[in-house]
Amino acid sequence: MEYTLEEIAQLLGGEIKGNKKLKVSTLAKIQEASPGSIAFLSNPKYENFIYSTDASAVIVNKDFKPKEDVKASLILVDDPYTSFTLLLEAYQRSLTMNKKGKEEPCFVGQDSRIGEGYYIGAFAYIGHNVTIGKNVKIYPQVYIGDNVTIGDNTVLYSGVKIYSDCVIGHHTTIHSGCVVGSDGFGFAPQPDGSYKTIPQVGNVIIGNHVDIGANTVIDCATMGSTIIEDGVKLDNLIQIAHNVQLGQNTVIAAQTGVSGSTKIGKNCMIAGQVGIVGHISLANKTTVGAQAGIGRSVTEEGTVWLGSPGMDKSDFLKSFVVYRKLPELQKRIEELEEKIVHLQR
Amino acid sequence: MEYTLEEIAQLLGGEIKGNKKLKVSTLAKIQEASPGSIAFLSNPKYENFIYSTDASAVIVNKDFKPKEDVKASLILVDDPYTSFTLLLEAYQRSLTMNKKGKEEPCFVGQDSRIGEGYYIGAFAYIGHNVTIGKNVKIYPQVYIGDNVTIGDNTVLYSGVKIYSDCVIGHHTTIHSGCVVGSDGFGFAPQPDGSYKTIPQVGNVIIGNHVDIGANTVIDCATMGSTIIEDGVKLDNLIQIAHNVQLGQNTVIAAQTGVSGSTKIGKNCMIAGQVGIVGHISLANKTTVGAQAGIGRSVTEEGTVWLGSPGMDKSDFLKSFVVYRKLPELQKRIEELEEKIVHLQR
Amino acid sequence: MEYTLEEIAQLLGGEIKGNKKLKVSTLAKIQEASPGSIAFLSNPKYENFIYSTDASAVIVNKDFKPKEDVKASLILVDDPYTSFTLLLEAYQRSLTMNKKGKEEPCFVGQDSRIGEGYYIGAFAYIGHNVTIGKNVKIYPQVYIGDNVTIGDNTVLYSGVKIYSDCVIGHHTTIHSGCVVGSDGFGFAPQPDGSYKTIPQVGNVIIGNHVDIGANTVIDCATMGSTIIEDGVKLDNLIQIAHNVQLGQNTVIAAQTGVSGSTKIGKNCMIAGQVGIVGHISLANKTTVGAQAGIGRSVTEEGTVWLGSPGMDKSDFLKSFVVYRKLPELQKRIEELEEKIVHLQR
Repeated sequence: MEYTLEEIAQLLGGEIKGNKKLKVSTLAKIQEASPGSIAFLSNPKYENFIYSTDASAVIVNKDFKPKEDVKASLILVDDPYTSFTLLLEAYQRSLTMNKKGKEEPCFVGQDSRIGEGYYIGAFAYIGHNVTIGKNVKIYPQVYIGDNVTIGDNTVLYSGVKIYSDCVIGHHTTIHSGCVVGSDGFGFAPQPDGSYKTIPQVGNVIIGNHVDIGANTVIDCATMGSTIIEDGVKLDNLIQIAHNVQLGQNTVIAAQTGVSGSTKIGKNCMIAGQVGIVGHISLANKTTVGAQAGIGRSVTEEGTVWLGSPGMDKSDFLKSFVVYRKLPELQKRIEELEEKIVHLQR
Repeated sequence: MEYTLEEIAQLLGGEIKGNKKLKVSTLAKIQEASPGSIAFLSNPKYENFIYSTDASAVIVNKDFKPKEDVKASLILVDDPYTSFTLLLEAYQRSLTMNKKGKEEPCFVGQDSRIGEGYYIGAFAYIGHNVTIGKNVKIYPQVYIGDNVTIGDNTVLYSGVKIYSDCVIGHHTTIHSGCVVGSDGFGFAPQPDGSYKTIPQVGNVIIGNHVDIGANTVIDCATMGSTIIEDGVKLDNLIQIAHNVQLGQNTVIAAQTGVSGSTKIGKNCMIAGQVGIVGHISLANKTTVGAQAGIGRSVTEEGTVWLGSPGMDKSDFLKSFVVYRKLPELQKRIEELEEKIVHLQR
Repeated sequence: MEYTLEEIAQLLGGEIKGNKKLKVSTLAKIQEASPGSIAFLSNPKYENFIYSTDASAVIVNKDFKPKEDVKASLILVDDPYTSFTLLLEAYQRSLTMNKKGKEEPCFVGQDSRIGEGYYIGAFAYIGHNVTIGKNVKIYPQVYIGDNVTIGDNTVLYSGVKIYSDCVIGHHTTIHSGCVVGSDGFGFAPQPDGSYKTIPQVGNVIIGNHVDIGANTVIDCATMGSTIIEDGVKLDNLIQIAHNVQLGQNTVIAAQTGVSGSTKIGKNCMIAGQVGIVGHISLANKTTVGAQAGIGRSVTEEGTVWLGSPGMDKSDFLKSFVVYRKLPELQKRIEELEEKIVHLQR
């Protein structure tokens, strides 16, 4: 897609200094920009880049006074950073939300209702009795099982799989390869050493304004619901087990796993590759560092945990500092032992 | 799906106390149940919930004598827990196994044979010379490569990918996004620092009554077979490398990785996010704790391993207890050093 | 596929001792071979297997003098190991590269160009304005977004998802379930505790001779490109975050995660389940052991890192040796304390 500076200036309420008819097709950082792109200058630290940038246009503060010649056309605004963010959002929206209509072949089951403004990509599968809101974008090869409900303005990228009976809110985005509603991992040991599968008949309920990364898996509840509350942000390749509950605005980085029936509070920040055992709860605003292993409930709000097994941050750091010096400590103990022998003589 | 209490009582061999014509459509825990659901009461600890539950019906022991009014209809049986489990199984079977027939478009290659009772979802792909048993359920967007063999009553959920030449047993369930038979990770270093791909021409053999979670990957063998024996249960997002062998009834939790050519015995329990190096073997009934790293073979049966690098459980716990006290130990050493100085004077 | 020994001998420039018309259909290790397969004998340690193998044919050194009867037909060559590798490569090429033509239904958008020798499997989706080189194999259910460019001889296995605007080189192989170009994980905290999504408008650029494993995820850059240089080998279930750069011939094992904006040099070897934080760089030829956590830049070439938090290999090993003896060290400190008390009296 291409836009003229005129169109962009109008969107941003800015003023053009240069060629109004100039077209740009992409956004870039000022220090990496190539011709055909638009960049911005906000932090004065980066000012010298504006004299050498290959960007076709740069968004600058309306008070900006160049000290040298500037090759690029300029768009003058009140707050270049905010304006650029607006532009980024408009650009991304134009990429995902302008997809419209139905590509054939796709499959839509009986008694399914789909709101206006939809995109249904080729080879997408929508089961029976599915309810889909307005402006929902269903990319190619998505699978939506029977009885699923999806809110307005939600985007499911190519290859997302939603098992039957799940509920997904509005303004939620789910990336490729993500699986929602697969069976929880429950097996009853039998006397002969084999396992009997415990049926998993619950569902997953995902709130509004949730973002879920590629190839993340959220299992359905054994009974009842696995719950992802509003505003939760999940990165890629995360494992959310059956009957887990993730509180509002909690953020989890890639490759972390949350075991069955654990409840994580609101506004928590969980780093990558963390493991959290089942049947515990973490208080609101808990922070967990990368690769930590959390084996017990955290009841106090706002604490920070590191290490595996997980320890309070300051305890962990104190222990780890000594861990690094262990060979030296061992030596000091040996020296003490020798000295004691001398003294005992 | 809806069932009358009459139908349920007949299935369970129970007796109804209440409205025979009442319909229920889902199963729930007695403390979380909403109208339209059926729950059970087995543990007397939960008895008080039966007087307040919103469940339409509750399965109870035939000797149960209510102490207060019960709003729900009752089904009286010998063993409520077992009856409820039966009901759960019947419910789940009705969800997955009642899918029948072929949805169009789907792709079936030449010389492929499919047993009766099949379900082939839309956009499923079945290659050439594939042999599929009876009552196999192939959900939409599944891919089955050439020459694959699949046993009776096996279920492949939406988006499962089976590479050519793999063999899958009967009564096996594979969840969405699971990949079976991708190339093993084998590369020969070249003098110029680049790598040459070592062709991976083996396959994967999966036994009977195996359950495999969503987005798990099982690589094919370099030559020969990667083998998953009967009754193995694998959770989500697990990595099984080329030429691995997993013994009967071994259970592995989410996000664990098993490196190439490693053999894991029977009835092992491997927790989540565990790493196991290549070319080793673990004896039968080995247990490995979450996030542990196993770098050497385990030859004795029934041992438990924790930590990374992995240690025998009791050794690990003893060391970790001291690890937590390291700052204090360091202080004690400093005090000893001071005292010694005094004594030496 | 079946080949006669005559065809194989011709390919290898070898001489047949036995039945020229004999057909073999698979390759095997000499100690595991079954009838219908061809094996090789290179290492004299394995010589005794040739007298008992069930292989129909064995590739041997032209100077090989059997000490007993050999049931199998022989193909005599200069270097059996190299010949067998050639055969393996030819076999695998015949499996993947002999797929040709277009299976219906598939979807090809407007203004997309596809070079000769292509395979497009059923239910594959190719967006608008896509450019695809010669001999590219696109397996069933692959998704290729708008404006993607793909070089010659590249293979995308079933279910690969490539988001719009990504660039993929030639002779590159991507396995099932891999996602390329999903949104980077970027969110700006808001005063009310919620997060605003930072638009991710960059792409992913993947070089030549790259191999990427099943269910691995490579996120697009926020702006600019996430870059995977030539010759990189990525195993399964790996997370590569936005704006990461992986240097030429770097190899990463399964389930490792690299956080945003990190640059990894050339010829690095990163083991499995490693975590690397964002915004750092690793020098060329850095080696990282399994499950390690790298939290700081590595500036010196050729170093080895272990543990979480990561330490220089020799430091880690020295500390870990003492860690295992911590309970004993604690005891020695207690003994010292007792002795001191005695001495102080």
